[in-house]
Amino acid sequence: MECAFLSKRCFVVGMGPGKESQMTKEAVSVIEQVDYVVGYPVYVELLKKAFPEKEYGSTPMRKEKERCQLALSEAAKGKDVAVICSGDAGIYGMAGLVLELQKDYPEVEVEIVPGITAAVSGAAVLGAPLMHDFAVISMSDLLTPWEKIEKRLRFASEADFVICLYNPCSKKRADYLKKACDIMLESKTDDTVCGYVRQIGREGQEAEILTLKELREARVDMFTTVFIGNSQTEIRNGKMVTKRGYRL
Amino acid sequence: MECAFLSKRCFVVGMGPGKESQMTKEAVSVIEQVDYVVGYPVYVELLKKAFPEKEYGSTPMRKEKERCQLALSEAAKGKDVAVICSGDAGIYGMAGLVLELQKDYPEVEVEIVPGITAAVSGAAVLGAPLMHDFAVISMSDLLTPWEKIEKRLRFASEADFVICLYNPCSKKRADYLKKACDIMLESKTDDTVCGYVRQIGREGQEAEILTLKELREARVDMFTTVFIGNSQTEIRNGKMVTKRGYRL
Repeated sequence: MECAFLSKRCFVVGMGPGKESQMTKEAVSVIEQVDYVVGYPVYVELLKKAFPEKEYGSTPMRKEKERCQLALSEAAKGKDVAVICSGDAGIYGMAGLVLELQKDYPEVEVEIVPGITAAVSGAAVLGAPLMHDFAVISMSDLLTPWEKIEKRLRFASEADFVICLYNPCSKKRADYLKKACDIMLESKTDDTVCGYVRQIGREGQEAEILTLKELREARVDMFTTVFIGNSQTEIRNGKMVTKRGYRL
Repeated sequence: MECAFLSKRCFVVGMGPGKESQMTKEAVSVIEQVDYVVGYPVYVELLKKAFPEKEYGSTPMRKEKERCQLALSEAAKGKDVAVICSGDAGIYGMAGLVLELQKDYPEVEVEIVPGITAAVSGAAVLGAPLMHDFAVISMSDLLTPWEKIEKRLRFASEADFVICLYNPCSKKRADYLKKACDIMLESKTDDTVCGYVRQIGREGQEAEILTLKELREARVDMFTTVFIGNSQTEIRNGKMVTKRGYRL
């Protein structure tokens, strides 16, 4: 294969929310040019349809370390490799792990290719909730103690940040969103404007705008991104909009 | 002009950090298809070279309301219009203002087209600083009281967020970054790993990794995005990496 890149390169690529049109041109061009693509099985299957001529590898959830090692070891053999991540490569993606593991493969060059993360793509669906200072918090306590998550929720609410929650729920954590809402309700009002988007940019995308009190009772799943407004967030023409302070 | 979109549509488009390759395919396709493009003068001049056949409008800094009104009024006349924003449309961009002003132009449909914001593109240059929960704070006090900015800096530091600062400096606010560092140093250590990127994705891009104590003395300008690590952020092979907690 003729290739514009040097070999032994490992790209960590943010694929955006789902639609090919929401990938950057750079991400598309990297995928086109690499020899080997590694990712979470669902995303690998999607890519195989578009690029059947590539070599592919995948590892399941909780085997992220092995996924990054597979990518780096294939790159060390002289291939150009892409590790694909949904959303952005560097926001709860594989960029950090690849850079941490790179020490064992010193001959491999790593490059991070950014993508549209769910905070950004979900915000565009709901309106403009992130027009002012915001905090992004993952509710997954697989790798983070719950006390740390609680403290971040509490302090971000108290300082009137707009808050965006990733991984708001899973089977084992069915009541976590309710617990998070209770913490945020210590300093945010019941009627704080909130929203969530499920399956952003994919078939079956759903969006809902509701109050913080209603969010406490909402059923969301792991494919949902949740937005909690600040004291200046309003509903305008059915959209969630955080005012920045312009005089209108 | 033959156009796939309905008329009277106003798109608010995130153009990404600067390189055309970091625009999404959707953003490129919207620019190709609209009749009229409105933006800040510098970005309009850049686009004119690539798309000389469009009609263009612009308003200077601090005339953002007029810029959005111009876009909506041109759309109301039956044109397809794009309001262009650097980075993302919804993060300190024009999405909120267009949605707020839409009430005066009820016949215009507004659509937000997301883009790569500086937190995401700057992080990719530095390594992977945003691998864990983070807060984005603008240091501009044009529209936000300084006390509110201070409180957000203090609470985000105290809760061990990675912090990304937009607009860290201007002529009138020469000492603001120093003031911000002093607040963050109340709860973050002197040797917290920090980084900044100037002119992300543009000619003359510069990146620097340094400690929080050193950042306090750094000279940055308004084209710089600043990253302050959390307690788990390290330097790996010259890159800024926030560990997520995987066992390696």
